[in-house]
Amino acid sequence: MSDRRLKGSRRAAPPPTPRRPRPDKAARLDLGVLDGHLGYFIRRLQVWVFQDFIRTLATIDIRPAQYSVLVVIAANPGASQSQIAATLGIERARLARLLNKLEKRDLVERLESPSDARSHALRLTRDGNRTLKRARTLAAKHETRLAEILGPERHKLLIDSLRDSSR
Amino acid sequence: MSDRRLKGSRRAAPPPTPRRPRPDKAARLDLGVLDGHLGYFIRRLQVWVFQDFIRTLATIDIRPAQYSVLVVIAANPGASQSQIAATLGIERARLARLLNKLEKRDLVERLESPSDARSHALRLTRDGNRTLKRARTLAAKHETRLAEILGPERHKLLIDSLRDSSR
Repeated sequence: MSDRRLKGSRRAAPPPTPRRPRPDKAARLDLGVLDGHLGYFIRRLQVWVFQDFIRTLATIDIRPAQYSVLVVIAANPGASQSQIAATLGIERARLARLLNKLEKRDLVERLESPSDARSHALRLTRDGNRTLKRARTLAAKHETRLAEILGPERHKLLIDSLRDSSR
Repeated sequence: MSDRRLKGSRRAAPPPTPRRPRPDKAARLDLGVLDGHLGYFIRRLQVWVFQDFIRTLATIDIRPAQYSVLVVIAANPGASQSQIAATLGIERARLARLLNKLEKRDLVERLESPSDARSHALRLTRDGNRTLKRARTLAAKHETRLAEILGPERHKLLIDSLRDSSR
């Protein structure tokens, strides 16, 4: 199980150009049994992918969870908070805080639901749609960069097998 | 890009038996462009895998990052904090806090480095070795369960391609 395959270091400040987690020659420690754990590798890639996403969308101040929520509201106008929470696997309390922030920034509005007085129907505002449009463009650039760095075949293989895993 | 593939919901309390993120029929919202983002799917699987790990090791109160640090110290006795941080991609300040906790629990000790007075050589204590032994057994059960739930082929494919991605 123990070998010397993953030696990445991301301690350094964000580099000017994107990069994949590069082996740091000075840090060649044995991973021991971590080398057989899916959770270890998935976490390493997730952190790196999120760092790139956050950096790419920093100019419009949209974080990954905010992006997911904006995308899903736009794709399902009038959906309820509980539907969004269930679809994205976000805790309801966390989603409520996230929506408060988006509402304060005038990106999202909560309307009274015609069908259920206790729930709200969510919708993007005009500013929300404008911001989402810019976010989509930046997120597409981020994704293109991931595909370049990972290689298009591996990028596709990972998306497909991860998507299947969550079915 | 938008289809109806990922509909997982993990809002419910942790189930008595492990499960993969199951589609929630009540939450069939369109994912929109999220369906083409690696970051979205990798985060969903990462959260689910970590939840299972945390639940499995709850009896010995060892969290994923603590486990990684214990494993790597055991595999590289005498390694320095900066080597561990670089190998695992953990911020140095975060690693220092984590080591403080492990030291208070008498699982890890920091010895003066023979080669560098400013750094410490890390080592597991006797209790640390005992705890790691139990942690390894539980973590192996967690991994076996992941392989059962994802299917052994997909589990192997994911580990291999994620490991390659971080080379």
